[in-house]
Amino acid sequence: MAYLAGLAGLAAVLLAARAFFSNGALYDPARAPETSIPDCQPPTAIAPEKPVQANVWLGLTVEEVVDIREWLLDPAQGFNLTRGEKAKINDNFVEVIEAIPPPKADALAFYKGGPKPARFARAVLSFGGHAEPTVQNMRVGPLPISKSTKAVPHTEIYHRPVVPHNSRTMTVQDSLFNMFGQLTKDLERVSQSLFGGVMRGLPNDTLTVAGSGPWSFDGSFRRLWIQWKRTGPGSWLNPLPFFQYIDASGTDPSLWKTTKLVYNRQVFSSTADFVQAFDNGTLEIEHIPDIDPAWTTRVRKGDPRDLDDKAGPRAVSFAGHRFRVDTDQRYVSWMGWDFYLGFDRDMACADLSNLSSGLSLWNINFLNERVIYELAPQEAMAQYSGDDPRQATTAWLDRYFGMGACVHEMLPGYDCPHGAVFLPATVHSSSGSMTNPRAICIFEQDTGRALSRHRGYAKGETGAIKDYVLVVRSVSTVGKYVSRRPLPFDYTFMLDGSLEVRVSASGYLQGGYWYPEHDQHGTRLYMRSMGTLHDHVINFKVDFDLVNERNSLLEKKTQVRDVPHEWLDDDWGPSTRQQFISQRIIKNESEARLRYPQNFQGAYAIVNTDEKNAWGVPRGYQIIPGMSPIHNTVVGSKRLLKNANWAKDNMAVTRRHETEPSSSSAWNQHLPGAPPVDFDLFFDGESIEQEDIVAWVNVGTHHLTQAEDVPNTRMNTASSSFVLSPLNFHDSDVSLASANAVLLNQDAHGRWVADENGVKEPRCVPKPPAALDYGHDVAYDLNGKEIRDPASPWLRAEVFPYANHMPEGGVRMA
Amino acid sequence: MAYLAGLAGLAAVLLAARAFFSNGALYDPARAPETSIPDCQPPTAIAPEKPVQANVWLGLTVEEVVDIREWLLDPAQGFNLTRGEKAKINDNFVEVIEAIPPPKADALAFYKGGPKPARFARAVLSFGGHAEPTVQNMRVGPLPISKSTKAVPHTEIYHRPVVPHNSRTMTVQDSLFNMFGQLTKDLERVSQSLFGGVMRGLPNDTLTVAGSGPWSFDGSFRRLWIQWKRTGPGSWLNPLPFFQYIDASGTDPSLWKTTKLVYNRQVFSSTADFVQAFDNGTLEIEHIPDIDPAWTTRVRKGDPRDLDDKAGPRAVSFAGHRFRVDTDQRYVSWMGWDFYLGFDRDMACADLSNLSSGLSLWNINFLNERVIYELAPQEAMAQYSGDDPRQATTAWLDRYFGMGACVHEMLPGYDCPHGAVFLPATVHSSSGSMTNPRAICIFEQDTGRALSRHRGYAKGETGAIKDYVLVVRSVSTVGKYVSRRPLPFDYTFMLDGSLEVRVSASGYLQGGYWYPEHDQHGTRLYMRSMGTLHDHVINFKVDFDLVNERNSLLEKKTQVRDVPHEWLDDDWGPSTRQQFISQRIIKNESEARLRYPQNFQGAYAIVNTDEKNAWGVPRGYQIIPGMSPIHNTVVGSKRLLKNANWAKDNMAVTRRHETEPSSSSAWNQHLPGAPPVDFDLFFDGESIEQEDIVAWVNVGTHHLTQAEDVPNTRMNTASSSFVLSPLNFHDSDVSLASANAVLLNQDAHGRWVADENGVKEPRCVPKPPAALDYGHDVAYDLNGKEIRDPASPWLRAEVFPYANHMPEGGVRMA
Repeated sequence: MAYLAGLAGLAAVLLAARAFFSNGALYDPARAPETSIPDCQPPTAIAPEKPVQANVWLGLTVEEVVDIREWLLDPAQGFNLTRGEKAKINDNFVEVIEAIPPPKADALAFYKGGPKPARFARAVLSFGGHAEPTVQNMRVGPLPISKSTKAVPHTEIYHRPVVPHNSRTMTVQDSLFNMFGQLTKDLERVSQSLFGGVMRGLPNDTLTVAGSGPWSFDGSFRRLWIQWKRTGPGSWLNPLPFFQYIDASGTDPSLWKTTKLVYNRQVFSSTADFVQAFDNGTLEIEHIPDIDPAWTTRVRKGDPRDLDDKAGPRAVSFAGHRFRVDTDQRYVSWMGWDFYLGFDRDMACADLSNLSSGLSLWNINFLNERVIYELAPQEAMAQYSGDDPRQATTAWLDRYFGMGACVHEMLPGYDCPHGAVFLPATVHSSSGSMTNPRAICIFEQDTGRALSRHRGYAKGETGAIKDYVLVVRSVSTVGKYVSRRPLPFDYTFMLDGSLEVRVSASGYLQGGYWYPEHDQHGTRLYMRSMGTLHDHVINFKVDFDLVNERNSLLEKKTQVRDVPHEWLDDDWGPSTRQQFISQRIIKNESEARLRYPQNFQGAYAIVNTDEKNAWGVPRGYQIIPGMSPIHNTVVGSKRLLKNANWAKDNMAVTRRHETEPSSSSAWNQHLPGAPPVDFDLFFDGESIEQEDIVAWVNVGTHHLTQAEDVPNTRMNTASSSFVLSPLNFHDSDVSLASANAVLLNQDAHGRWVADENGVKEPRCVPKPPAALDYGHDVAYDLNGKEIRDPASPWLRAEVFPYANHMPEGGVRMA
Repeated sequence: MAYLAGLAGLAAVLLAARAFFSNGALYDPARAPETSIPDCQPPTAIAPEKPVQANVWLGLTVEEVVDIREWLLDPAQGFNLTRGEKAKINDNFVEVIEAIPPPKADALAFYKGGPKPARFARAVLSFGGHAEPTVQNMRVGPLPISKSTKAVPHTEIYHRPVVPHNSRTMTVQDSLFNMFGQLTKDLERVSQSLFGGVMRGLPNDTLTVAGSGPWSFDGSFRRLWIQWKRTGPGSWLNPLPFFQYIDASGTDPSLWKTTKLVYNRQVFSSTADFVQAFDNGTLEIEHIPDIDPAWTTRVRKGDPRDLDDKAGPRAVSFAGHRFRVDTDQRYVSWMGWDFYLGFDRDMACADLSNLSSGLSLWNINFLNERVIYELAPQEAMAQYSGDDPRQATTAWLDRYFGMGACVHEMLPGYDCPHGAVFLPATVHSSSGSMTNPRAICIFEQDTGRALSRHRGYAKGETGAIKDYVLVVRSVSTVGKYVSRRPLPFDYTFMLDGSLEVRVSASGYLQGGYWYPEHDQHGTRLYMRSMGTLHDHVINFKVDFDLVNERNSLLEKKTQVRDVPHEWLDDDWGPSTRQQFISQRIIKNESEARLRYPQNFQGAYAIVNTDEKNAWGVPRGYQIIPGMSPIHNTVVGSKRLLKNANWAKDNMAVTRRHETEPSSSSAWNQHLPGAPPVDFDLFFDGESIEQEDIVAWVNVGTHHLTQAEDVPNTRMNTASSSFVLSPLNFHDSDVSLASANAVLLNQDAHGRWVADENGVKEPRCVPKPPAALDYGHDVAYDLNGKEIRDPASPWLRAEVFPYANHMPEGGVRMA
């Protein structure tokens, strides 16, 4: 419709030509302006009105990472490193490079006009070539590389100086995946007979495997159970009753071996024993029916629903967006809120050692006051149960896989509404980098209801405020080699100063082979498939700074008592039974591991007792439980002994320290007995009264699986949340400032007169959404060279080893 | 844009005239079709394709009610009734007439092709003229009135045959409100001095009152505390420290009197004593500061937010609605769901004796199977606490006020999105009827996220389904004489067969006079105002019929145990610690009063053990707790002793009986010691295994008030919900039938190809929303005559006595 810009001129010409067009029925120039309906403003990001200050939490660019890597590789640094493309697991190489966020004091000083904090990176070095192999974190800086740049061990944030190599994260240099074919080659004849296929680790295999975790307790060994399953769509739902226990300790793949096998609940201590039992007829055979491969796909099925051939409703910002984004600085503002986004610190899939996982939000201000310094997911736990070797022994910590790195390109119109602003994210691994152009989306949403409303008769009583929200979302597809769980992380900002944090889950279950006796551990989903009972718990760091860094933890509880009153008459007796509130400031970390009270009778809030609202009440923010406010069911399991103790409660509060930036680490997965980050050690009796404190808040689900989890879990019910909401932070509800609101009063005749603050929607033509265009990831090799060819196997697999290994039946060579 | 219909013809003419318009920059005929953008389909209701069966739950029309009333007034019936306009409280008159829903068996038989059930009404007769005054429910029918119509006592649904007159609901015939002026006339001089105003019960008074409840324990007396407050907007937030205890027992207003007074926490047993203390200087005076009347209004305040002068995003159904509504039969269908709406059975504000409160849903089917026979709110409890006579003694049951009748006209664009379909509702009282043209709204909503999604590499794995929902909403503004709480009731239908029930709360708090010591009962909101601590609990009846009427209650629990496994190696020890599920069918009502387990470890579901899905699992629906899944904190309070025992737990399950249609009644409010409906008596040890059973499910909030409750509570956090969701009801997720979905596969070159099932949005011009037009209530007098003049005091107050009495400073004469 761009040509319509000249339409006023056209109308004038047409007017002059009226006599020529004598057919008035066809064209009436008096109505001509109707044809000039302009296009609606395109849904592009609106920039801030003034330049914004630099984002000190921005990640490293590909160029910066290449520079740092080259500097580390320089023999002058003395690390004896092999380049990633050539490295084997028993070499020394650079796993990961990521930015280290500046110290909080430096960042805050910068935003108050001080100098920009010096920039540092963390480099994870895999020392597979050392006599005692380890993984070592190095702090590299200042950046950019100069003569004063140094690399020093980055140990102060961990509870152990180095990571044992047996507890390393997965890299393309690790040849574990390649071993499976080797470990199964003596099984081909038997597997062909029992399962109708083979598992050689080649692309066309009909069988593949899924693994258990953790692989170690304290780093002294590296062992995992693998369960065989059918390849194809949703292979996680098609497991077979066959398991191998693999010892993959050390860095010499030639020593890796199968130490135990379980077939149809019969245990064998070697492949030979198992084959022998098969050959001599002593094996109890489980007859496995054929399956319809469609049962696990997302291919449309079922009767069409009435009117579903029409497109459903779609939200349009007819007047253009009402939020601002500085796409370079990743700064967002909306209706009094403003904040910065962090992302690039996240690590490559299964290659990560990231401090935080996925999108993080920094320096969150509302109405020009800081509310939160840092809001970031920390870790996602999934603990399974079952009767078989894999289900019974698996407890995943998704940070190991890299929640941030697994953020896949989102689907416009599905993952986020059309018209959302998408932002890219770049992640870096041992073999390159990858940019996802649609990693984060930002959109304003009409919730379809009022935020507050009232109907009365007194002047000024009747009206309503539209409940608009701003959503910032990223979708992390966690778990590749294990089941795949897309986890949308939603941060929803509200007009009254509330902020909801929500994680939803979809994707495929980790399935088990179904036997009738398995009812205690899940639900039968298909002929021989079951969904496995598990808990998800996801931890968030909320570094509150209510006005400033001196905050406290307030506990409110309600109880019941009988109260005598002198004004009571005999009719009702001498007392009333009623509830009352008791409140206290929890003074010490040791009392600050918190569970929501029975029947939610009470509240936890962060307050600043030095800052009071007009009515003398300390200004605070409540942490309101939302959907599914749960904690981990299983406590004391050896497989999560010390590495996920943040999951034991609904939340906890600690004093903030630069040395305690996160509740977990990527290596916690394989070190349950001696984790690099031991959350329990955060609690050392420090005062948390008017100190800089951090709330660690959990969401999660108890997943008692069901038939409707097939093909994928539904996010309407698999969702968990909490809301951070002003609690006497203001003197009254500040959403009353909204102009998208109505006030109604009655005139002298009793007629209602509406005042909508002059806000009107323009009449314009919105563009229908474009057809879905997908697949825009860009990879970079170790030299920073772009690779855009979607057929490139490198793009598909080399950067992120877990992303493409295994489930589709192929094992790629690193 | 209607004239554009001929635009193709116009384009042809313009094409012919091309030479004439030589300026190609102004007009290029090759692009002419672009100008012919049609208007979008208007958002009007789409009718079902075939005529639908009659709705047997429709309410009575005004004409039917007039006919029934005239028949009852006929001396031939022997009730000795006075017409409503002339009746006084010590006369006999008709309070309320409403339809009685047919017996379930008859209704189900009708929908299977049987005869239409006979129609009956319930008439509530106030026998104030009897020697022993009572309120009596009569069953009148069959309808329409004929020779065979009879009126018989309708007692089988109550636990007491008649209601004592002292526990009656409020009608315009009751002159209690008129008494307040009389009871306060000796206080004028003192109140002028202490409070700067008087309370005479006249429109221009500067002071008014708010009352406590219940007014009786067992019907032997009728007494209430009234608290004085300032008139004006949000008067509930401006209470004064002055209380009178009024004895209004019996039907002779000349005997009603003040029996106690409390001023500034000093107790007096008569008005004379209080005045004497004032005069002789012994009264301890509380100095009450002046207030800014704006503090309680909804008038916009605060700095404008950036870009808020623009209209926010708005959802448009470019392709037209996708749900169908039969507006006569109140039948709705959407994406496999269909159901009927009930409403008109609800009663007039404070005049009600309604069985259910507000909107109800009937015969809810999904994919041609019945899921729920009846879904209806039952009762809403609000129990307060505090140190003063009103806060300490108040426990409201909103059915008394009439949740359904208080459904006010909704605000299009605020209460529901523009484009929603609105339905009217009519309610009937002792002095007429009233129709609210926008009582219910229905709209489809794009939640802005996917219902399920996955990203993988195998064929058929990658895709997403748009998460559309259908919302049916009504907003009930409960409480007139007390504080005003608008309660939107939302029923949200989802593509997978889930149905969320949600109640949100806004409006004014019930405020108390603030003293510093009051911190245990609430929060200071202003100079001398506090918000009072209270619990809300709201009960819903969910009469599940999963496939048929034989259903059971399933309990699942998860616990932790150590399990030895023979396949374990020494490395991890001989056992695993893991959770497991235990499940049982709860066989008896006596075990079916249920609380959500600690940490939500488990689930409650209704299942049909005779109906299994393809995998042998009983088909069921889980009752999933949503936001704020609470029950009442205070148990054993004399003011709620037996009349709200449904609130003690999160839910309960009973055998369904026609004689137990509801968990409460309008008279439960003032009969806590001997309620007409005693929920405890539903539990008499009956089997609930494969029987017709009902789940009674609660939502609610513990409202620890805060400054941000001013002026009105915000619905983003004051919201509570549960979700009814298929639990192995299907063989897999049925939302996979959705056409508004995408499936992505990679071609041979690795490029993603999207299949969106051919669903495309039309390019069209949507109409901007009209300016808000409000005030369309229509009243009917006892003869059924329409009254539309908004200035008519009758329209404002006569039909619904609570609606306009008191808060604005006026007491209308009945």
